[in-house]
Amino acid sequence: MMGTRAHSSHPGLSVQPDRAVTVHRTLPEEVAVAMVFDGSSAAVMMATPADVQDLAIGFALSEGIVTAPDQLDGYELAEHPNGLEARFWLREDRAEALAARRRFMAGPVGCGLCGIDSLAAAARDLPKVGDGPRFTRDEVARATDMLRDQQPLHDQTRATHAAGLLLPGQGITLVREDVGRHNALDKLIGAMARQGMDPATGAVVMTSRLSVELVQKCAIAGVTTLIAVSAPTAHALRLATDAGLTLAAFARGDGFDLYSNPYRIVDEVSHVA
Amino acid sequence: MMGTRAHSSHPGLSVQPDRAVTVHRTLPEEVAVAMVFDGSSAAVMMATPADVQDLAIGFALSEGIVTAPDQLDGYELAEHPNGLEARFWLREDRAEALAARRRFMAGPVGCGLCGIDSLAAAARDLPKVGDGPRFTRDEVARATDMLRDQQPLHDQTRATHAAGLLLPGQGITLVREDVGRHNALDKLIGAMARQGMDPATGAVVMTSRLSVELVQKCAIAGVTTLIAVSAPTAHALRLATDAGLTLAAFARGDGFDLYSNPYRIVDEVSHVA
Repeated sequence: MMGTRAHSSHPGLSVQPDRAVTVHRTLPEEVAVAMVFDGSSAAVMMATPADVQDLAIGFALSEGIVTAPDQLDGYELAEHPNGLEARFWLREDRAEALAARRRFMAGPVGCGLCGIDSLAAAARDLPKVGDGPRFTRDEVARATDMLRDQQPLHDQTRATHAAGLLLPGQGITLVREDVGRHNALDKLIGAMARQGMDPATGAVVMTSRLSVELVQKCAIAGVTTLIAVSAPTAHALRLATDAGLTLAAFARGDGFDLYSNPYRIVDEVSHVA
Repeated sequence: MMGTRAHSSHPGLSVQPDRAVTVHRTLPEEVAVAMVFDGSSAAVMMATPADVQDLAIGFALSEGIVTAPDQLDGYELAEHPNGLEARFWLREDRAEALAARRRFMAGPVGCGLCGIDSLAAAARDLPKVGDGPRFTRDEVARATDMLRDQQPLHDQTRATHAAGLLLPGQGITLVREDVGRHNALDKLIGAMARQGMDPATGAVVMTSRLSVELVQKCAIAGVTTLIAVSAPTAHALRLATDAGLTLAAFARGDGFDLYSNPYRIVDEVSHVA
């Protein structure tokens, strides 16, 4: 039976060349989570079983199954021997969006499409993001350190990613963690939606590299600035440039690299109190 | 047009609180790769476009589409505006395996199954691995440092993962890199298959954490020992224990943690010259 605990303790040997001692390590949990809308599964993904409701809402938003959290009703979490089921009911006018996604997903996983068609189905047009807030160089440089101070699961396991919301002049105000960086971002997007926070008002800060998929999720959510501890891929950078996102990478205390739409990062910002 | 180069150079600003200078950074490429068997797509995944043939062969082996590389014929790599197509023809008796996989994959991505059925479809029974070789504490402790010396793409980009094959007494003899750790492992498995190397003769060394999916790929390939720079998830550890795999984690020069089936890691090994 898979549980809903985010971590668990396991015995091991701490081995050095000349000795070995028994230790207990806290490891992050990873379970299969089925995202179920109107009684049928839209995806199964491996995730840390914390904030599963946020994950399911963020997933539904990122994948275009819904455009606002009030289109999702009646959340239930069910535990099964093989994993968890996050269940929602869709408002009636979203059923067509789910059917359209089924057709879209048939390409990438290969229900018989040819290669060119499946590549076309996997490519997504991204919206242009809005203008968004400005951030100072100093707060961008300190963003990943500030995030690091709010990662309790990582403190226990040394092995999980986090996505945080940085608000201008206010630091990191919301954080979600997961063994997977894409899940951490979906959880953050879902948590913002549940709490009525507009993703366009802040920057997203990630503990990871920036893949194409992370840029896609941010652009669809309306996030205008993405800050990461490591590098973007070249294609993630192209997508971010085209969608109008600001990408700051290698953000590590003393500085960062700025790759696209640098105008949002400024020397000084006048914050309204 | 997506290319087949593994990295590219991009201008950026290196920003510190008091100054910003223009720099050029080498970033890893990430393109959509369609895995096409007998003319239809089995999956599209984002990957670094190097060693794509190894990736496709490793994917086909990991997913059970084939059980040996000689069941794949006529490799072609096609470039398209949205990505790459890795094409193979299947030996006739493998067509049923591909059809079975299509039915299996319908669950996880949601072609209308309910949540419980899709979780059951996503769960995989793993084979028990064989006895396999022994490794000394010293070579396990040094494994991730030895791998680090053979990561040219990471040297240029500081942002890619690697999977390496460690042979007893011989160090790291084969390495593959990718922006994604699962792809790096599939590339290594494919490269071993192409070169006629038996995965059961060595250990796999990863630059990453150990997820459920990495343990699954190793067990299916017959790898008996998995060494990583970071932690396993708790569920990855359970699967490894049951499949008979030895998991060594946090392997960093001066030591490592040993979690399951520790008998393969010994003080001394008599290597046949």
